Amino acid sequence: MSKARLESFSDGVFAIAITLLVLTIAQPADYHHLAEQLTDRWPSLAAYVVSFSVIGIMWLNHHAIFGQLARVDRGLAYLNLLLLLTVAFLPYPTGVFGEALRQGDGAQVAAVVYSATMAVNAYAWGALWLYASTRRRLLADTFPEERRRTATLLFTAGVAAYTVAIGIAFVNAYACLAFHGLLAVYYAADPLSRRASRAA
Amino acid sequence: MSKARLESFSDGVFAIAITLLVLTIAQPADYHHLAEQLTDRWPSLAAYVVSFSVIGIMWLNHHAIFGQLARVDRGLAYLNLLLLLTVAFLPYPTGVFGEALRQGDGAQVAAVVYSATMAVNAYAWGALWLYASTRRRLLADTFPEERRRTATLLFTAGVAAYTVAIGIAFVNAYACLAFHGLLAVYYAADPLSRRASRAA
Amino acid sequence: MSKARLESFSDGVFAIAITLLVLTIAQPADYHHLAEQLTDRWPSLAAYVVSFSVIGIMWLNHHAIFGQLARVDRGLAYLNLLLLLTVAFLPYPTGVFGEALRQGDGAQVAAVVYSATMAVNAYAWGALWLYASTRRRLLADTFPEERRRTATLLFTAGVAAYTVAIGIAFVNAYACLAFHGLLAVYYAADPLSRRASRAA
Amino acid sequence: MSKARLESFSDGVFAIAITLLVLTIAQPADYHHLAEQLTDRWPSLAAYVVSFSVIGIMWLNHHAIFGQLARVDRGLAYLNLLLLLTVAFLPYPTGVFGEALRQGDGAQVAAVVYSATMAVNAYAWGALWLYASTRRRLLADTFPEERRRTATLLFTAGVAAYTVAIGIAFVNAYACLAFHGLLAVYYAADPLSRRASRAA
Repeated sequence: MSKARLESFSDGVFAIAITLLVLTIAQPADYHHLAEQLTDRWPSLAAYVVSFSVIGIMWLNHHAIFGQLARVDRGLAYLNLLLLLTVAFLPYPTGVFGEALRQGDGAQVAAVVYSATMAVNAYAWGALWLYASTRRRLLADTFPEERRRTATLLFTAGVAAYTVAIGIAFVNAYACLAFHGLLAVYYAADPLSRRASRAA
Repeated sequence: MSKARLESFSDGVFAIAITLLVLTIAQPADYHHLAEQLTDRWPSLAAYVVSFSVIGIMWLNHHAIFGQLARVDRGLAYLNLLLLLTVAFLPYPTGVFGEALRQGDGAQVAAVVYSATMAVNAYAWGALWLYASTRRRLLADTFPEERRRTATLLFTAGVAAYTVAIGIAFVNAYACLAFHGLLAVYYAADPLSRRASRAA
Repeated sequence: MSKARLESFSDGVFAIAITLLVLTIAQPADYHHLAEQLTDRWPSLAAYVVSFSVIGIMWLNHHAIFGQLARVDRGLAYLNLLLLLTVAFLPYPTGVFGEALRQGDGAQVAAVVYSATMAVNAYAWGALWLYASTRRRLLADTFPEERRRTATLLFTAGVAAYTVAIGIAFVNAYACLAFHGLLAVYYAADPLSRRASRAA
Repeated sequence: MSKARLESFSDGVFAIAITLLVLTIAQPADYHHLAEQLTDRWPSLAAYVVSFSVIGIMWLNHHAIFGQLARVDRGLAYLNLLLLLTVAFLPYPTGVFGEALRQGDGAQVAAVVYSATMAVNAYAWGALWLYASTRRRLLADTFPEERRRTATLLFTAGVAAYTVAIGIAFVNAYACLAFHGLLAVYYAADPLSRRASRAA
């Protein structure tokens, strides 16, 4: 099992999913009122930007985690496939979310589905990390033990955070989308090196 | 003929096909009954998960096989293209299968078409393997002779298994989809190293 | 200008275009007569297989040509972009061709458009090759002079062949599609090493 | 943070966005008047060619800039994501622009939206360049100081040029599309080595 080929396959899926997101914004139905039609689509654009940020930041974190692995095995490859499944699926709930907000109908359901997809994704991240880091199974020797504990905490927090997102979805769909944007920003700081950032 | 560029082109096709699968799940037609519409689409989601697993596991096996080749030639490149054709085509029968199950109409036909695509795929795998391994044409010297025989057996069994899948399709479409899921799990164990797994 | 990054970008476009082809086959409109609907789509499947072969074989030849270049420059990069434009565009005429044959309407027009796209592609190949090989501008020293002449002849013949295809399109659309399939097979033999094949 | 993986992810997004552009050309609605239908779509084809050139040339310039960087960091990765967002989004305004010109309705709005997308893109390029080059933060030692100043000037000019494009959009949509084509040609000359071109 080559780490390089696993990374490059994952990069491919991340890059394609992030680029396919553009197909989730519905085409204008009527070009005579184009300005109005496009302005109406701002929730789709907002969902696009949130999902683009989510996938882009996940890619960076994937990159950071794999940089700390000494080797990979079949078990990791399967957990990685599970993770990629949730990433590759994201364009669907993104499109539904944006369209539901635009139509002002079904937005709560769409927010729950979007948040649930992200929660499954958070579980996949947690499983991947625990598999790789428990008893330092696949970790490089150079990775400090204390950062391992911080990272485990952050991945567990991720599962909790996305469960909270499902709760918010039931209250307000717009707040839920904003919450996902905030979580992306939160994860934008490399979870593996958060404690080490002063030293960098 | 560079092995690295052949692998990276194949990785690209696998990664794109697996990510395009998400486009096979039909958009909701009516956002007023969104929860119902999305629940109705569970067969599409099931077909999505099965095909995602199939392509992901094929990618891993492609990777394992190419790792055992000392070199590649034009003949292998064409058999590889045939294999990629069946992989790249898979989103079409996947979409049709999920939609037919959802509509409760044409499911048998869709299951047969899906299984037939997988059977052609199994033939392509068999041809690729036989071409590369017969008289050890392209195999690395380090690849043990006994594993070559096991692998040949497993690839031949694949052709038989997918022929059985066509039969099941005529009986029950849901059972057929489940059978494809099981076959994916079966192939998840690296066919090239199955005998060697105790030693790993 | 890095040759490796130019090759890998080109590989990406080839891999995506070849995988996007599957989207050109129209979804069934009526699942109650699914078998009939899918059988009706055989011209789309035939156009899919022809275009898949065309792009796959072009990728192999692209690979073979770049393997003979010592270096690349901006001029080559622009001619390569022109080539990639015709490759990336191919899904459009492929979809139109298959659908026109299925509907039995507009097939001649579709065949002309498909052939014209391929003719522009052949011009791009010719321009790329002449740019790289004239006065051996970018060729590796190891590339034999006599093979350069053979390759130039074959690329020029390509332009003529696809011009003939446009003529055939006016006579019979099915014959035109078959002719494109034959041309793909003809180019499947590496144009750069055709003379050297006995020695291989 | 590995520069190679950042480049390869970016290459992926550029390659996918450039290839997805083909999906922006609307399928014929009526195959009985296919020639007419396809001829009517020439503005979509023109928008396709302009956007294809824009993305292709941006990829070349991305390549040239990253070739001058000694290293990358998280800050650059985020600005790069912002840049990729505008690139990945481009198929949407491209499709809308082509379709608006074809329908002869909403063309001005579409031209403004297209130009605004390009202006945001120009801002992202400027930010990326300023971040990397200010106090030579990430620049390789071999990159000459005077070329840094020329490049900064050219990126600033880009922001101005795309602001002008928005103005032209209000006057004439066709002129606006042509202007974008011209700007692409202008940027086709590597902005990093423009002064050095005599020496090359």
